[in-house]
Amino acid sequence: MKFTDKILVPSGFKATGAHIGIKKQKKDLSLIASDFPCEASGCYTTNVVKAAPVMWDIKITDSGNKVRGIVTNSGNANACTGQQGIDDTKKMAGCFAKEIGCETEEVLICSTGVIGVYLPIEVLKKGIAEKSPELGYTESDFLHAVEGINTTDTFIKTASAEIEIGGKTVTLFGMAKGSGMIHPNMATMLSYVLTDCNIEKPMLDLALSECIAKTFNMISVDADTSTNDTSLILANSAAGNESIASHGEAFNTFKAALEAILKKLAIDVAKDGEGASKLMEVNVYGAKTIDDAKKISKSVVSSNLFKAALFGADANWGRILCAMGYSGGEFNPMLVDIAFKNDKGTVKVSEKGTPLAFSEETAKVILSGKEIYIDIFLNQGDFNATAWGCDLTYDYVKINGDYRS
Amino acid sequence: MKFTDKILVPSGFKATGAHIGIKKQKKDLSLIASDFPCEASGCYTTNVVKAAPVMWDIKITDSGNKVRGIVTNSGNANACTGQQGIDDTKKMAGCFAKEIGCETEEVLICSTGVIGVYLPIEVLKKGIAEKSPELGYTESDFLHAVEGINTTDTFIKTASAEIEIGGKTVTLFGMAKGSGMIHPNMATMLSYVLTDCNIEKPMLDLALSECIAKTFNMISVDADTSTNDTSLILANSAAGNESIASHGEAFNTFKAALEAILKKLAIDVAKDGEGASKLMEVNVYGAKTIDDAKKISKSVVSSNLFKAALFGADANWGRILCAMGYSGGEFNPMLVDIAFKNDKGTVKVSEKGTPLAFSEETAKVILSGKEIYIDIFLNQGDFNATAWGCDLTYDYVKINGDYRS
Repeated sequence: MKFTDKILVPSGFKATGAHIGIKKQKKDLSLIASDFPCEASGCYTTNVVKAAPVMWDIKITDSGNKVRGIVTNSGNANACTGQQGIDDTKKMAGCFAKEIGCETEEVLICSTGVIGVYLPIEVLKKGIAEKSPELGYTESDFLHAVEGINTTDTFIKTASAEIEIGGKTVTLFGMAKGSGMIHPNMATMLSYVLTDCNIEKPMLDLALSECIAKTFNMISVDADTSTNDTSLILANSAAGNESIASHGEAFNTFKAALEAILKKLAIDVAKDGEGASKLMEVNVYGAKTIDDAKKISKSVVSSNLFKAALFGADANWGRILCAMGYSGGEFNPMLVDIAFKNDKGTVKVSEKGTPLAFSEETAKVILSGKEIYIDIFLNQGDFNATAWGCDLTYDYVKINGDYRS
Repeated sequence: MKFTDKILVPSGFKATGAHIGIKKQKKDLSLIASDFPCEASGCYTTNVVKAAPVMWDIKITDSGNKVRGIVTNSGNANACTGQQGIDDTKKMAGCFAKEIGCETEEVLICSTGVIGVYLPIEVLKKGIAEKSPELGYTESDFLHAVEGINTTDTFIKTASAEIEIGGKTVTLFGMAKGSGMIHPNMATMLSYVLTDCNIEKPMLDLALSECIAKTFNMISVDADTSTNDTSLILANSAAGNESIASHGEAFNTFKAALEAILKKLAIDVAKDGEGASKLMEVNVYGAKTIDDAKKISKSVVSSNLFKAALFGADANWGRILCAMGYSGGEFNPMLVDIAFKNDKGTVKVSEKGTPLAFSEETAKVILSGKEIYIDIFLNQGDFNATAWGCDLTYDYVKINGDYRS
């Protein structure tokens, strides 16, 4: 597998992005189209309050119908907007369908931004009509599309992979936006993967859900599960490989590439959590069940108290054990070892759930790094899990104290 | 019922508090003793990682044995300290038991402060022995005891009630400490109620658990459920009333007083959340079940995103609906109305789950107050619940970024 953080455009996809006037200055529209009909799968927020576009997309990906494109606006989530929100979503889809020559129900819609404000639908209709002719096949066209989905993101999040399936080169390209409202399940964000792979819908659904469980569902920025979480994958068959219709080598190759892409994007989202200054990776080893390992690792990356300690580079490992304790995962605290590590060094801070004498100085140096790995050895079983998160900073409070202005 | 925020000392209880050298300057020891054996009930943290003193107290209150006193140290939680922590707890109890003339197993122990550091047990033994002779019956003795349990609290939390039961005057006095690691269940904190009421142990257990469910279990500061949460009540019978042995008027009178005290203390804890500048009270009306009402109200007071918006006086009601949506409580978002209110005014911001045109200026004025009431009308049933919380501020991050230094 060839893997890169850059953009590799899969055959038959085109894209563009632009500023059309929803946000003050930054790009707020992203258009993606496929020259060929795509199999489409989606994973969505578990929040009871689902934004109108989420309800629209669920209906389409559940139906098994083919899809031709994705329209995204940023700056307004079109959530908590009742019937008008539902109507606006359909208008967006209809407008883009007309431009690219397909049915309204073949266009997926995503919206991200402030909740509880009606979409400026006329601005959107005008923008979609004006910008659709700019759809292009180059890396820079896709870069515009990536920029168009961002909100408070501080950097763009992309990843690509090239694999061989039955002698054909298959390309996968992934893009994501994150920042606030990031919490399993699933990480509050948008992510799209576009691929020219030929794969049947049930296998595409399976690959997406299995990969999301290990990647986007294992990150947390602020434990707030949003109304708009959406992760989509479109596969348009343009690579010409024999269709992947069952388990086997081709499916495994495809899934490995998809997981690598989603993992890179998920870590990017955690790293770019609102106000974040540090990435934390929490590895839990030796749990009795995979469910315990996941609950425990997610609870640590979600703890406000430990996140604040991480910001202050304070080796307050007691807060880790505390967060493990209320995770709902089962374990015996008396068997737990904990260590911090990164490129600055390694320091073991607790053994069998009790304090170890350790160098506070070394710990401070490690915790002052940009990436911190926390290894938790439960020593009571064979299951492991990894979760990603970030620190809690003044800037998180600042960004979210006045988001709407 | 006579109710006051002040200290009314119930008959037969004495107390003191002092600085003995665990913390740098502030009081760090609190001693409470009863001249007569007490019925004792407790509610404790649900965290799997329980501090040594919590395990000690659970054993005693579960046994049904009588109790003669409570020793509390602040500045060190004696959590994640293994067998040594358990031994230290017993030493503390033994030391105080010797001073007041009772069995070691008649002394309850609480510790609060940093996790994962062994207690300075010699300092504690010396301190308990030296300060026990200062136990006294006055309001000022109890004030010292209250100060002795605080950590990052910015004000002391007390409440008292006087009731008549069968012609006898019964007094209840409550004290609490809160601040960080505050989340249901139960609110991470210490609270003690002392009463001279004559009440049988099963009725005391029942009164405490029912009142905790409506008060301390309905507050959140940071969604971190601590290792040390403890709520105790001691009843020493000194008021001379006929023993409360069953349901009836006397029990109801007693429970009403206990609930009033615990509610006042719980709100104090929410108001004094680490770094908090505002108190929020979330009232959920019209849920299908009491469980739905509780889950929804607790989820709103726990949302980092809404807490940050509250700090910024930003009427971002969409975050409220979002937090309701991931609460696990059942409701139809299309029926929900939301309003903000306090002494500055009232503003309705959402109707049937959609935006209302409202004055941003009025909303700003209301949200800039010190206490904000959020009324959520689900309009789908007959059950109501109230939860309390606070805003998320720069100071929360500051306090918790370097707690140990």
